[in-house]
Amino acid sequence: MADNKTTLYQHGTLALLVPGLLDGTLKMADLLAHGDTGIGTGEGLDGELIILDGTPYQIDSNGRVNLVSANFMMPFANSHFADYTPLMHVDQITRPTLQRRITSKVASANTFYSLKITGTFTNMETRAVPKSGQPYQSLAKTAANQSHFIRETVTGTLLSYYSPQVFDGAAVAGFHSHFLADDHDFGGHILGFDQVTGDVSFQQFDTLEQHLPTTNTAYMGHDFTQDDILGDIHQAE
Amino acid sequence: MADNKTTLYQHGTLALLVPGLLDGTLKMADLLAHGDTGIGTGEGLDGELIILDGTPYQIDSNGRVNLVSANFMMPFANSHFADYTPLMHVDQITRPTLQRRITSKVASANTFYSLKITGTFTNMETRAVPKSGQPYQSLAKTAANQSHFIRETVTGTLLSYYSPQVFDGAAVAGFHSHFLADDHDFGGHILGFDQVTGDVSFQQFDTLEQHLPTTNTAYMGHDFTQDDILGDIHQAE
Repeated sequence: MADNKTTLYQHGTLALLVPGLLDGTLKMADLLAHGDTGIGTGEGLDGELIILDGTPYQIDSNGRVNLVSANFMMPFANSHFADYTPLMHVDQITRPTLQRRITSKVASANTFYSLKITGTFTNMETRAVPKSGQPYQSLAKTAANQSHFIRETVTGTLLSYYSPQVFDGAAVAGFHSHFLADDHDFGGHILGFDQVTGDVSFQQFDTLEQHLPTTNTAYMGHDFTQDDILGDIHQAE
Repeated sequence: MADNKTTLYQHGTLALLVPGLLDGTLKMADLLAHGDTGIGTGEGLDGELIILDGTPYQIDSNGRVNLVSANFMMPFANSHFADYTPLMHVDQITRPTLQRRITSKVASANTFYSLKITGTFTNMETRAVPKSGQPYQSLAKTAANQSHFIRETVTGTLLSYYSPQVFDGAAVAGFHSHFLADDHDFGGHILGFDQVTGDVSFQQFDTLEQHLPTTNTAYMGHDFTQDDILGDIHQAE
């Protein structure tokens, strides 16, 4: 079995969200068995999840931060066991500059990795989606109801996963980043921020453990050939 | 960790073969640690590999079947621990009919699975590529030197992996099938056959354990954005 410090676990695929296969197919307890750090969403796109130091939090569509129970169900999530290495300190740099410095420093475009940034962010903008019930709508329709939140200045943790381009559709190619404020009153899926001052740490993986919801009949019976997976993903993400 | 009877292990990606990243980055001994059954290719596209009951065989470009040593290096390979269930007996059916019967019977298009077919095949056509040295050429140029082999009637084992469409590029979407004759004098990557009579067995996975060659500098430094991965793959495969 793979070394658990170099393995990124993923349940579900980004692609299954596109046509609205939003059943919860993994318990939070099972996600935590594969890591103490992670991100994801709940059944019916019920908020944005972030796991830090073994504790799972949900940012809901009202902007509240809730602790997540062991039985909380998810259609799509990632986790791994934290073993980060300090990468650099950054001081009032923009998001594009941050991404450029990271990608040139780590030279890991062809594998999976995680970034953890603790610091202070300006004009941090996040989103969270309200939970839908069955029958589920497409990702595009469900995400159209998302709430947006913004903070002029906020101190907290950004957790990001990078996936190589060839895994686009299965994973989110490029960076997929969630945020939690230190005072637990703000967070979500990151849409953007102006500047960050803080510490960037890095953890590279050599293995993706991709788990699929093979006992879910909606997933197994779905005809993906009719979906514009990549088009819809890049509109919604 | 995942149940090892429901996990498909993959080292490398199909995409890395396209620009000619053909360094051997995994030993056969390490592939066998993840399964007793599998397929793959050697460094420099050195032949076609098939692992049956824990024994790895190489079909080289002269059509010879060789036993593979523990130190044999590979750029791309799959393995898993066999736990097949009998699916059906087939009698003189064509390859398209076989695939149609299998896909309707297993209803597993959205996950990874393996097929093992033992029987007699007519006009079985295979290929094997001769080993290239450095500097490696692209997959298209390297595969242009492949040898073709054909047998009017041959009894043996077809081993196939099915991967869902969303993993195309990382894996071989659809079926990827290798063959070994019972008398070990014929085999390779299957290009086609006319009819088969035999027994089809099936093993479904819920996990892909995708391992990447992160210690290989040629892989990690390559700019994949310049490659027409899917176009070249579907020409060569």
